[in-house]
Order: sequence, then structure tokens, then C-alpha cells
Amino acid sequence: MYSLHFTAESASNGMVERDFTVGGVPGIPGVPGVLWSPASDAADHAPLILMAHGGGNHKKHPAMSGRAQRLVAGCGFHVAVLDAPGHGDRPRTAHDDAEIAELFRARAAGEPEGPIVVRYNDHLAELAVPEYRAALDALQELPEIGTDGPVGFWGINMGTAIGIPFVAVEPRITAVVFGQHWPDTLAEKARQITIPIEFDLQWDDEHISREAGLALFDAFASKEKSLHVNSGKHKELPRFEADSAVRFFARHFGRPVVSPA
Amino acid sequence: MYSLHFTAESASNGMVERDFTVGGVPGIPGVPGVLWSPASDAADHAPLILMAHGGGNHKKHPAMSGRAQRLVAGCGFHVAVLDAPGHGDRPRTAHDDAEIAELFRARAAGEPEGPIVVRYNDHLAELAVPEYRAALDALQELPEIGTDGPVGFWGINMGTAIGIPFVAVEPRITAVVFGQHWPDTLAEKARQITIPIEFDLQWDDEHISREAGLALFDAFASKEKSLHVNSGKHKELPRFEADSAVRFFARHFGRPVVSPA
Repeated sequence: MYSLHFTAESASNGMVERDFTVGGVPGIPGVPGVLWSPASDAADHAPLILMAHGGGNHKKHPAMSGRAQRLVAGCGFHVAVLDAPGHGDRPRTAHDDAEIAELFRARAAGEPEGPIVVRYNDHLAELAVPEYRAALDALQELPEIGTDGPVGFWGINMGTAIGIPFVAVEPRITAVVFGQHWPDTLAEKARQITIPIEFDLQWDDEHISREAGLALFDAFASKEKSLHVNSGKHKELPRFEADSAVRFFARHFGRPVVSPA
Repeated sequence: MYSLHFTAESASNGMVERDFTVGGVPGIPGVPGVLWSPASDAADHAPLILMAHGGGNHKKHPAMSGRAQRLVAGCGFHVAVLDAPGHGDRPRTAHDDAEIAELFRARAAGEPEGPIVVRYNDHLAELAVPEYRAALDALQELPEIGTDGPVGFWGINMGTAIGIPFVAVEPRITAVVFGQHWPDTLAEKARQITIPIEFDLQWDDEHISREAGLALFDAFASKEKSLHVNSGKHKELPRFEADSAVRFFARHFGRPVVSPA
């Protein structure tokens, strides 16, 4: 019932890109996703990294495809991303429209965005967590992935709001990269997470205070955790943190990074 | 007057190691140091990284030679370290003996080490800063180094206590890696530093509180600064932070890391 349905395939830069839907039933469309894999067969049963995109973006946003390029071409990993509810190729509900309008209103009025983002992302995560679990089930049914390779998760911003509740209930995930969210509703679930983590914060984030960001990092029960703080505002996460996250997964999953990263 | 005097030379693993003294005059011995350079001539006018060792260690401690190996063999850089006053091949004064005895007494009594380390390291830095400036003058007189290549500084713990006052008055240093010290006397000098910095903290440091460590990081006036926090106690800084620091210098000095790091 969870099998993937591939809907398109292309290849470039040593990377095969396959669009899919997962979990659809007659009359109800599945969740659209993308699976990036190495062009060579050497990637059989290679590690899989699930990623979740940021708010307002979609599964093939350059922040996703750029990270995938590093993981697939650089490490020989598989990478999969789903469109979050209300994002990308998925329909927006009236609730989505109302929350987004409220966010834009607060932003224009110079009011804090945090309370709205926290509330809306919580709602989206409730929908997205079972979708990610279903996608992982289905991806592991593919012969080139299987159930014996390690699985990681990488999501910043809204990707962290989805990723923390997902990873807290998903024992197949064994290493994660998170960052840039508030502790309000996530810290409690972060306390259930014990796997190695790399966590990104922006020191001059205009939305997330230092105290809030550090509190969420502190909440993780992981024995092995690393925090990377950089100067700059919310959207100025340096590109070299993407390379660092790739090395984090390569280190934990025992795969050398073959291209410069 | 500042010329280096080389006293020994050996080579292994693609790295030439030359012991030197600097600043000696008849009747007064110079400061002992070590210069590591790539075995190939391709390193002419390559970037130079000055390093300072931690308290109780010396210029060729594995924490120094291991970092040098990564920088020299991995990036083609020159690396130089001096023995700090009272350390390595240098004589201990009665003041050194008294401070070290006081540190051991406090440690045995379960009292905080911070106030003693801060005070003693301040004293050593006052002596060491002019020594590092003289060494840099002399190293840049060497034809294989010269004055036209970039110069970085790398020191953690006592290396930070020496490095911050040194870099605050030394415009030739253009990128630094510091970490793991108290803000008490260093924060004021850190506010004068504006060059790119990578800073290491241990999240479970039994000597330096999180607040103290974060306050020192925050004090730097650098536009581009990165903080790397890892779980673990004071002496458990992960080895991958050495690789990260090498990449930091390679990124700023425009040299690719050629060996896996």
C-alpha cells in the first residue's frame, strides 16, 4: 500500500532524479516527492538521507537540490525529499491560506513571527510525520535502497519542525542535521532524541533569539551533539555549513566524501 | 636582531621540521620554536599559521604536530609554534612554580581553576606576545616565507589567552581559530579583533561555564565568526574540529585541502 509510484526520471551531473508519489489511493493523490540517486550502480544499498524543505519552499528548491548534489555525487548516497503539506505541488487549504496571511500581516506590522511560525509548523508536522514514515517504508522497498543501509535526516527551519517529531518516533534514523527553530513545542520531543546531531544557529537571527536557539540545541538527549553558530541573520546560513553537514553524514555512515566539500 | 637560528632539521611524512631559537643575544638564550614546512619547494611564500600550545604542553606536543601535519601536508602551509614561557625547553621561574602549585592545590581541593588559570595565563601572555611578534618578524625574513603570504593564528585554551592579545595588536594576522577560555580579561581585547574567526567550546566543560564561553565568543567584533560547540568535557574537543580548523584556514587563504580532512 505504501509503494512509490515514479512519475518522471532525468539525469544530470552524475545524479539520477526521479519524481514520485507515495501513499495515493484511488481518488486521493499521493504525496509528491523526489528521489536523487547516484548514476552508477555502486550506490546499491547506500545510505539514504531524508530531507525536509523550509517554509515557503518545495522539494526541488536549490537548497534541497544543492544539498542532494553534494550527498549523491560527493558521497554516493540516496536523497529523498517530500513536498510539505500546502507546499510545492500540493494544494493549499483554507487553513494554510489563513496562516500564511497572518504571517505576512505580522511581518508587515513588525510583530514577532515566531508564535505564528511555531503554531503553523506544528500543524504541518502533524500531517507530515506519517507521510515521511510512509515514504521511508516505501523507499526501503526499492531494491537499490533496501532496509540494511543507514538512514539520516536533514532539515533546517520548517524542516526541523517536521524532523524533530519524525525522528523522535522513528528508530530507523541514526544521524540528523537540524537547526534554526524555536524550543516552545519542539524541546519536549528533542529530549527523546539520542542519536548524533549537528545543529545550526544564526547568531544575529532577527526572528529566533540566541536563548531560544541554544535552548533547543540543549534539549537533545544525544551523547554526541555539535552546534554550529555563525554570525549573520536568519537567512544568511553560510554555504559551508552544507558541506559540513555532508561531512557529518559521511563520518557517521562511513563513506568518504570523494569530491571536494 | 630578530633572525631565526636553526638548531636542528629532520623530515618525515612530507614535512620538514626545523627547530629554531629567536631573539637570543649573547648571554641570553632565545625563545625555542619549531617551523614545519612542506618538503617540496612548491610551498614558497605559502601561507603561514602561527600556533600556540595549551597549558602544561609544549611546541611539539601531538596536539601541535598533528595539526601541523594537516596544515603542511594537507594544504602546503608553513606552521610555527613557540614554547610558551615556563613551558617545554624553557626554564620555570619561581613565579611559574608558585602558580602551578596553586593550580594543583585548587584542583585537589575541588576549587574552581578558572581564577588561577586566567591570572597565570595573563602573565604568560604578557611575556609571549612580544615573542610571537619577534618570531613573525624573523619568519617573514626567511626567503621561503616572505612578507607577501597570508598569516593565521591557531590556539585553544592557553593558546587563546596568548593569541587574543597577540592578534589584537598584530595586523599581519588575517584569520584565527580560538576557543575554550574565560572572558574575564580577554573579552576587552577580543572586541578589538575584526578578522574571521572560528571558535571552539565544549558544552559540558567542567571548568568554563557555557555563559563564560559564549560571552568570549560574543565579544569578537569580527563580521565573520563561527562557533563550534560539542558535547563533552574540557579535554574532549573532538578530533574533527582540527580538520574543521584546517578547512577554515584553507577557505580563507584560498588553498584547497589536498588530503582527506
